[in-house]
Amino acid sequence: MQTYTVADHLVDRLAELGIDRVFGVPGDYSLALLDHIVHHPSVAWTGTTNELNAGYAADGYARLRGMAALCTTFGVGELSAINAMAGSYAEHVPVVHVVGAPALVKQAQHRPVHHTLGDGEFGHFTAMHADITCARASLTEVNAVAEIDRVLTAVREQRLPGYLVVPADVAEAPVPRATAPLAPSADGTDPEALAAFTDAARALLDRAATRAEIGVLAGLLVHRFGAAGPLTDVLAAGVPHAVTPWAKSLVDESAPGFAGTYSGAAGSTETTRRAVEDAAALILAGVQFTDLNSGLFTQRITRSRTIDLGPRVACVGAATFAPIELADALAALAPLVADRPAADLAAAPPLDPEPPAPDGDPLTQATLWQEVADHLRAGDIVLADQGTSFYGMAPHPIPSGVTFVGQPLWASIGYTLPALVGACTAAPGRRGVLLVGDGAAQMTVTELSTVPRLGLRAVVLVVDNDGYTVERAIHGPDEPYNDIARWDWTALPAAFGAAGATAVRVETVGALRAALAAVPTRAAGLTLIQAVVPRDDVPDLLATLTRVLGGKTR
Amino acid sequence: MQTYTVADHLVDRLAELGIDRVFGVPGDYSLALLDHIVHHPSVAWTGTTNELNAGYAADGYARLRGMAALCTTFGVGELSAINAMAGSYAEHVPVVHVVGAPALVKQAQHRPVHHTLGDGEFGHFTAMHADITCARASLTEVNAVAEIDRVLTAVREQRLPGYLVVPADVAEAPVPRATAPLAPSADGTDPEALAAFTDAARALLDRAATRAEIGVLAGLLVHRFGAAGPLTDVLAAGVPHAVTPWAKSLVDESAPGFAGTYSGAAGSTETTRRAVEDAAALILAGVQFTDLNSGLFTQRITRSRTIDLGPRVACVGAATFAPIELADALAALAPLVADRPAADLAAAPPLDPEPPAPDGDPLTQATLWQEVADHLRAGDIVLADQGTSFYGMAPHPIPSGVTFVGQPLWASIGYTLPALVGACTAAPGRRGVLLVGDGAAQMTVTELSTVPRLGLRAVVLVVDNDGYTVERAIHGPDEPYNDIARWDWTALPAAFGAAGATAVRVETVGALRAALAAVPTRAAGLTLIQAVVPRDDVPDLLATLTRVLGGKTR
Repeated sequence: MQTYTVADHLVDRLAELGIDRVFGVPGDYSLALLDHIVHHPSVAWTGTTNELNAGYAADGYARLRGMAALCTTFGVGELSAINAMAGSYAEHVPVVHVVGAPALVKQAQHRPVHHTLGDGEFGHFTAMHADITCARASLTEVNAVAEIDRVLTAVREQRLPGYLVVPADVAEAPVPRATAPLAPSADGTDPEALAAFTDAARALLDRAATRAEIGVLAGLLVHRFGAAGPLTDVLAAGVPHAVTPWAKSLVDESAPGFAGTYSGAAGSTETTRRAVEDAAALILAGVQFTDLNSGLFTQRITRSRTIDLGPRVACVGAATFAPIELADALAALAPLVADRPAADLAAAPPLDPEPPAPDGDPLTQATLWQEVADHLRAGDIVLADQGTSFYGMAPHPIPSGVTFVGQPLWASIGYTLPALVGACTAAPGRRGVLLVGDGAAQMTVTELSTVPRLGLRAVVLVVDNDGYTVERAIHGPDEPYNDIARWDWTALPAAFGAAGATAVRVETVGALRAALAAVPTRAAGLTLIQAVVPRDDVPDLLATLTRVLGGKTR
Repeated sequence: MQTYTVADHLVDRLAELGIDRVFGVPGDYSLALLDHIVHHPSVAWTGTTNELNAGYAADGYARLRGMAALCTTFGVGELSAINAMAGSYAEHVPVVHVVGAPALVKQAQHRPVHHTLGDGEFGHFTAMHADITCARASLTEVNAVAEIDRVLTAVREQRLPGYLVVPADVAEAPVPRATAPLAPSADGTDPEALAAFTDAARALLDRAATRAEIGVLAGLLVHRFGAAGPLTDVLAAGVPHAVTPWAKSLVDESAPGFAGTYSGAAGSTETTRRAVEDAAALILAGVQFTDLNSGLFTQRITRSRTIDLGPRVACVGAATFAPIELADALAALAPLVADRPAADLAAAPPLDPEPPAPDGDPLTQATLWQEVADHLRAGDIVLADQGTSFYGMAPHPIPSGVTFVGQPLWASIGYTLPALVGACTAAPGRRGVLLVGDGAAQMTVTELSTVPRLGLRAVVLVVDNDGYTVERAIHGPDEPYNDIARWDWTALPAAFGAAGATAVRVETVGALRAALAAVPTRAAGLTLIQAVVPRDDVPDLLATLTRVLGGKTR
């Protein structure tokens, strides 16, 4: 491999963007490309059991690391991963999907080769990616460098997935080494718009007699568009603030002024509700209200009192200012907030508001999540699957330094199990804590075998409630379509090659406590806990949501 | 459920088309629809562990039964299944994909609800199905009956997948009961074209001095377009004939005149080659030459001596006649063939040409497939995954009454495991015999748990060769991307709830023989055999193909 090739350029660019690992499954059209990944000095290859799981793993990696890549083969591979890519698009996760395709010299013959529809056409699958990627390219020897750079820049700027088709012969085509890194992003903020926004925001913030009358509701897009630093600066002045469930762990939940997780009329505490809805001046920072992120659109936001910051548009009341990047808008707000008189802030809600349940109590949704929350430590990455796990954990305050990952908009069950693999590889040394229902885990459980294979540190809690409990709560509690096969989850780690794993089944609070206490604190390794809870028990927040959803679907 | 609804009309139509089971995974947008499936008198619901597996299972069912249906939820569910649907399209398998969608009254609000991209648009996923379905519809109360009937008719006629989006409120909308079945298919054959074709075919067949100088090569489309009966009539006259690997088990391989499986220059025996390439007059019946189905396009067919029958077009030499349906063309050929003088035909190749290997021999690709072939019995459904399994079994003659299922065009590894579930439910009482590599099985193995859940009868042979052996043979034999995690396959059935299953690991011919001999002959149940073979051993046919493929990808 002395010639510098298109594949080398691509992998070097990925490395430049901070990616040190590519997820995927090999295929004959991608093998030549994979050589350039496995032999790259700073990029590793991580094979997964299937391509959907590779896509989920890449998504999990990108949420921790800022960007990710996966590589699959033409047709069969890329389409298996397409649900994961659509999820990355919906949830603003920058993932580059590299597809190994038949050589252009073979495509030119238009023959029915394997992994095609048999019609001699090779553009079908690119077309199928149009709606779920922000940029796409089919590489040729001539356009490869320019198109790779264009697509990667778009992914970096727009924080959305991109798609690159690399024919086998193009992968090996020689290109000159790039002499400069990707062009830095142009600052998208118009200074005049920012000045006008600042004036308008100052006037609106003047409505707050003290900082205690300002409210901040922080959303996911703060994280995605790299505005967490400026947000921290705003909050440092001391203002009441909350997060949406989607943005959980964006802010330190133990800081003064933290008022909880805001879900509109569904499950928000009175403290949370007041901090958001009754603020004299409310800053919405990167908030997108989706159904499951807003108590089914029951948020009560008064526009005239609100500064609403999107990725590139800032609104003050009814006035819109653009283009203004989210980070720039927050940076402009920080001194304005600090200009208001200081006030005493309420302490954050206690991490552990409930008295501990007796050891002998059977596990329920209430006791389960309380025990899990008590067990979390700074540095943990908590992944909560979109079911009782997400809604059970979302309202619980979590310790400072814990990262929380959920997927409430795309809501693809099973997502979190492979995402655990991605997240743990993105943040070496940190422990993954996976919370997933049995129905969801059955979808993607084969990826459990990658945890010991990579020497990751993970606790996997499978909520064994005998089926699709979320669906039961919505409709058809006793219908056969909500049933699943009963598994012995504790037998799986050994079958999957995790010889040293611990696997236990628990039915009581005490047994769960003991299992969690036995998890090694520092060593790599897998602990699987099959936690049995009543079939139809659901967390309060979920009960509220599903009552309404069930009514609306009929 | 006294009101007759759109959902009832849909399920009644599926039943009318011979479908007695719908595969899928529930979601909140599809729950109301599912009620009408589970309560239908002649249609059952089969939940699978994930949607890709549901799609594969439906494909397997349709190959045995003629048509299948799967039902998933909006976005996350349908996109997880899309690789399976594309495979059904490539391989001409009629599967109806029913997607439960948000209610139209909710879609009209254009809000970011779960399982969408968050942009308030609901047409993205229909667009993504355009290239891989022959007909699509998004149902409304007004168009539902007409659109259901249009899509189902197209699927039935074109033998390709169709796609129906059923919003939750439309599913429950009242419609009148249909008073007539779906309109029968119009006969697509033009009598004048058929007469002209017949004259031309007679002239070409006259080149054969006797029936022994006629050759027939039968392909997959004979099966898909329901022309197996007329093909049998042609062969009954006594002519040498072969099948493509894709069409294996289309004809009785123990009948006189059967000359083997034709793969062009890759692996065809001299007998097979001569029967096809040296025939004075060759009938290609429903043959599509794809790369892996033709020894990488090494077929040698002389057009001037060939009658080539497609689904609706018939060619005699360079002359084309259309529209003529495949069955009608074959029916016209039968008397013409019988008009030629009879001749003695060679006997079919023996089922078991090799002397049995000693019990103590280690398993190899050669001994493994020989033993499996010896074990097959009439009524078995053999599913061979696209790897060493397919290429190992394809050249072996199989007993009369065995159905063989492979996927050499789409070639999505892991397909056969869920397809086993579909095929076995489509043909109750028949035994499924699954042949699958370890890398492929890791992709979809969770569906193994559905075998005991449904009380099916199956033998699952996992070829344990420590990774993606096909890929190793093509490129990168020792590269890490061709490695997989090592599993204890024998522990999986118990973990997946198959308490009564037998699971053994075998390394010798004798141990495999004993394991196969111990399979109960009639009772339902699962036998899993982990057959260990050398890592880099590949069947001869595959070695030939991969040598060329490997060269071409560089």
